[in-house]
Amino acid sequence: MPEILNKYTEIINTRLKELLDLKQVHPVIKDAMNYSVMAGGKRLRPTLNIMANALLSGNVRETLDIACAIEIIHTYSLVHDDLPAMDNDDLRRGKPTSHVMFGEAFAVLCGDALLNFAYEVMMKNALRHASNMDSHLKAMLEVATGAGVYGMITGQCGDIENEGQILTEAELKQVHEHKTGAMIKSSLLSGLLLCDPRQEYIDALTVYGNNIGLTFQIIDDVLDIVGDSKKMGKTLGKDKTSKKFTFPTLYGIEKSMKIAEEKTEEAVNALTIFGTRGKELTDLAYFILKRER
Amino acid sequence: MPEILNKYTEIINTRLKELLDLKQVHPVIKDAMNYSVMAGGKRLRPTLNIMANALLSGNVRETLDIACAIEIIHTYSLVHDDLPAMDNDDLRRGKPTSHVMFGEAFAVLCGDALLNFAYEVMMKNALRHASNMDSHLKAMLEVATGAGVYGMITGQCGDIENEGQILTEAELKQVHEHKTGAMIKSSLLSGLLLCDPRQEYIDALTVYGNNIGLTFQIIDDVLDIVGDSKKMGKTLGKDKTSKKFTFPTLYGIEKSMKIAEEKTEEAVNALTIFGTRGKELTDLAYFILKRER
Repeated sequence: MPEILNKYTEIINTRLKELLDLKQVHPVIKDAMNYSVMAGGKRLRPTLNIMANALLSGNVRETLDIACAIEIIHTYSLVHDDLPAMDNDDLRRGKPTSHVMFGEAFAVLCGDALLNFAYEVMMKNALRHASNMDSHLKAMLEVATGAGVYGMITGQCGDIENEGQILTEAELKQVHEHKTGAMIKSSLLSGLLLCDPRQEYIDALTVYGNNIGLTFQIIDDVLDIVGDSKKMGKTLGKDKTSKKFTFPTLYGIEKSMKIAEEKTEEAVNALTIFGTRGKELTDLAYFILKRER
Repeated sequence: MPEILNKYTEIINTRLKELLDLKQVHPVIKDAMNYSVMAGGKRLRPTLNIMANALLSGNVRETLDIACAIEIIHTYSLVHDDLPAMDNDDLRRGKPTSHVMFGEAFAVLCGDALLNFAYEVMMKNALRHASNMDSHLKAMLEVATGAGVYGMITGQCGDIENEGQILTEAELKQVHEHKTGAMIKSSLLSGLLLCDPRQEYIDALTVYGNNIGLTFQIIDDVLDIVGDSKKMGKTLGKDKTSKKFTFPTLYGIEKSMKIAEEKTEEAVNALTIFGTRGKELTDLAYFILKRER
């Protein structure tokens, strides 16, 4: 794990484990939820949430459950994405996928349980922070908007529909903005919103989020072609098999990387407003550009 | 539609339609969400929410979006329950199920989108009622608890696992309490919680909810054997085919109906504390006992 992600991984993982130590629930669903959430992963989105919260001297203890809820939502989306009816993937985070381990019915229920549980976690957290409840509700709504039909889900629909199609750069960007970008942006903004931020801070972090979101997806698609399946813990070469239209399909690898570099610079420039506090997110932007290669 | 359910159906349906008039989302997911939510249905759970809210002179406009969110959550659970990997049902509310209409991938995403959207709706509603935000959060958490791994989802797990098994009455009750009872109870309590109720009111409504929840499921299972598939708008006789263990399997139809009658009396008695305001929920309990036969 690169150092920049190491900083918060332990407190995120410890809290996730605590939260998922569920009592009086069906044992198979408890296992399935724990299996997928604790299978590893970079914890990128919760880290973004905590780092964004820290931009305005937030309190990591206050945003930690929102960060964990975001990771739980991300995990649910992977569990459902991997289903036979969707991407039909057998390997995720280096391990057999949920439906391979628990069967398809439990994998559907596991995703449902995780999504719902994320909201339970955030609501309980909000009730514990009664003096800042309005900000908590805004942060939760930001997460929900990124995860839902206005965000990630519309992106996944585009992804399904576009298989075998040829897209323009604008169309491709739009799918990416929804599919990956929306949750990345929401992870950041929800952390910031707990601090009752001025609009210019929200705007700056939105620019940062949009740009690292796009970079993340471009790099993901490039790695699907040139990456090391063992290092990445998932089946690669799937985009070609499933005829998914990506930045490398449109521009080739070299130009795609050039675009990713430009986007990263735009992201980093947007952080200027936060002064030296922007250091962590700057490092993270470069990590996303250079990850696993 | 029986008169007791008629009272709030129109405002529920009108509001659901407004809420689901989504802009800038993927057209197929918008269609799929609208298709399943607007396919009809008795709107029992949102009606329970509004009636419970009215017990303590609540404000129907304030709880209406919670009521709608509950119906949206109920619909998501049906969409996923009907999937080939789950109950594999082709017919629901008298119409082809979501995966028959839109394909399996979109049916998975439609369920996900609906569940997430329910929380978006409730959070926006809470933000509009800033002076009562604490009660809104408690009401939302009640809904989330009923819908999630502590409630409905653990019930669905039990349902899958118990196919072909023989259960005791206690085991069967436990599955029912989770699968159907939890959401019915949460529908009621979330409506009440907006009024900052005394504990004795919560307790009374919990007794009512547990008893009508069990009655609802017993009648459902009896109707699966003796009901009219056309009237009910779904495939019947499925419990036998799938070897689902139910109250009629355990006790036969006559004794099952006797239990349902007893439970209904217990439910109605619990409403005494609310005086004449309990009239609507009393009528509803008898409707549940006598529905569609």
